[in-house]
Amino acid sequence: MATWQPRDGAFEERVRTSFVHQAFMATLGARLGHVGPGEVDIELPVRAELTQQHGYVHAGALASVLDSAAGYAAYTLMPATAGVLSIEFKLNLLEPARGERIVARGRVVRPGRTITACRADAIAFDGGRETLVATLQGTMMCVEGRGVTG
Amino acid sequence: MATWQPRDGAFEERVRTSFVHQAFMATLGARLGHVGPGEVDIELPVRAELTQQHGYVHAGALASVLDSAAGYAAYTLMPATAGVLSIEFKLNLLEPARGERIVARGRVVRPGRTITACRADAIAFDGGRETLVATLQGTMMCVEGRGVTG
Amino acid sequence: MATWQPRDGAFEERVRTSFVHQAFMATLGARLGHVGPGEVDIELPVRAELTQQHGYVHAGALASVLDSAAGYAAYTLMPATAGVLSIEFKLNLLEPARGERIVARGRVVRPGRTITACRADAIAFDGGRETLVATLQGTMMCVEGRGVTG
Amino acid sequence: MATWQPRDGAFEERVRTSFVHQAFMATLGARLGHVGPGEVDIELPVRAELTQQHGYVHAGALASVLDSAAGYAAYTLMPATAGVLSIEFKLNLLEPARGERIVARGRVVRPGRTITACRADAIAFDGGRETLVATLQGTMMCVEGRGVTG
Repeated sequence: MATWQPRDGAFEERVRTSFVHQAFMATLGARLGHVGPGEVDIELPVRAELTQQHGYVHAGALASVLDSAAGYAAYTLMPATAGVLSIEFKLNLLEPARGERIVARGRVVRPGRTITACRADAIAFDGGRETLVATLQGTMMCVEGRGVTG
Repeated sequence: MATWQPRDGAFEERVRTSFVHQAFMATLGARLGHVGPGEVDIELPVRAELTQQHGYVHAGALASVLDSAAGYAAYTLMPATAGVLSIEFKLNLLEPARGERIVARGRVVRPGRTITACRADAIAFDGGRETLVATLQGTMMCVEGRGVTG
Repeated sequence: MATWQPRDGAFEERVRTSFVHQAFMATLGARLGHVGPGEVDIELPVRAELTQQHGYVHAGALASVLDSAAGYAAYTLMPATAGVLSIEFKLNLLEPARGERIVARGRVVRPGRTITACRADAIAFDGGRETLVATLQGTMMCVEGRGVTG
Repeated sequence: MATWQPRDGAFEERVRTSFVHQAFMATLGARLGHVGPGEVDIELPVRAELTQQHGYVHAGALASVLDSAAGYAAYTLMPATAGVLSIEFKLNLLEPARGERIVARGRVVRPGRTITACRADAIAFDGGRETLVATLQGTMMCVEGRGVTG
């Protein structure tokens, strides 16, 4: 992965403030982890409330933290006054997601003025074993002057 | 959309039983609606707990009900002893998702012995107005003899 | 599918002029068919030169005409001075693509000032039988003032 | 990227034989490069015949070599008697594709008995400069006993 130069030095504070306003992350029990230029990690402790019919973490719960991790990774490189929106994403489910916690690692692949391409991997931590359980490729948009921030 | 012939007459009961075991759907507050051959609708009442930083329903919450609707649509056409797994899906976010409720309409595009392609649309109901807010295209897998059901 | 109102009455001429400049379409032997507001069809006669190792039309050849059909469908609704770029697309391969010809039907799902979501279906015509062999969901971008037209 | 163990020692010969039978690769002027376990590179010299209306390599030409590179990467890890089919892929276009040649680097992300997830990057070589111009994420299927090989 490349190293990116943020345009706003206060990017981490912006991400942390916005994350607090994503009520859905609190509903899932997700926590913001590492925040760097073009890099955001979100941790999701596994709970029964997040599972599908086979007892694994639901693909939608994975999609939720992967999308937020990818979107905030893009957001770290945007101007101070911008907001970020997900245009689209695609997710491959690779293994049953189980264990104590999932870490979603969002990374910028190519930042642009309007459009930023991102990737995000979901790693399951299960008794000391780390497994890549899902991977996302998506597109984020920088919006300005529409009354949208964060 | 085409009309599909289910291989198991009890498909609706199978879907409804499996849905009850998706704990994550209860966490979201989602309810199973229409179930037909190759067709499943899931309704998601909008609540503050589901929102992102701009106050709209989080893309991950939409992905969750769209994935379940698409997966169960595929499941209606599978044999009685099979289980269904999401292999992958792709989601376009089209409009801010707001209103009183979201309905996710999963439909089979092409069923196969192992692989079933599906689509799912998320419609937002907002004060009598219906808006297509997101659309998913994905791939579901029929698994048998792996101790997986539903 | 909805009906869309073009902003430029000369949309069909713009699409036909641009298509002539897509040298790759001539390389494939593809021909522009129906052009309407938010709708473009491209026809691809099947030839041995387009096949993969099993004798079917290569997924990349399908992707090529589907992407152009979707992109031009978006382009019909853009201003006269704009250019269109593909941001991303996702393609499901549903059946082996064979027969006399493939028709790629690009349709706009939701047009926007900057971003337009599209869909495109590939239909194979084989001895009087029509089969949906692939389906695309993608995102097109309207660019202006960058010296890009068509 | 992980290191994978091939199940058939003759994987490279199988890939090279199959590639010769992809007539579409010859039509594009594409050449098979590196073949390793879970890794296949395809080189595409840039020619006017491959361009879209702005003079860049058409997204469909990129999709073609990326899909083949990803599919053959999956094929290196399949049993000697298997065939490989693309189920679906998603492509992000990151930069205008121009230069002397494109190299598509297909890599397995997670191999499975039936389903293999892959990634493929398209690098443009332009006067000594290397640019990531597109990236694909897709799903390949191992088919046996259906009279399909390669």
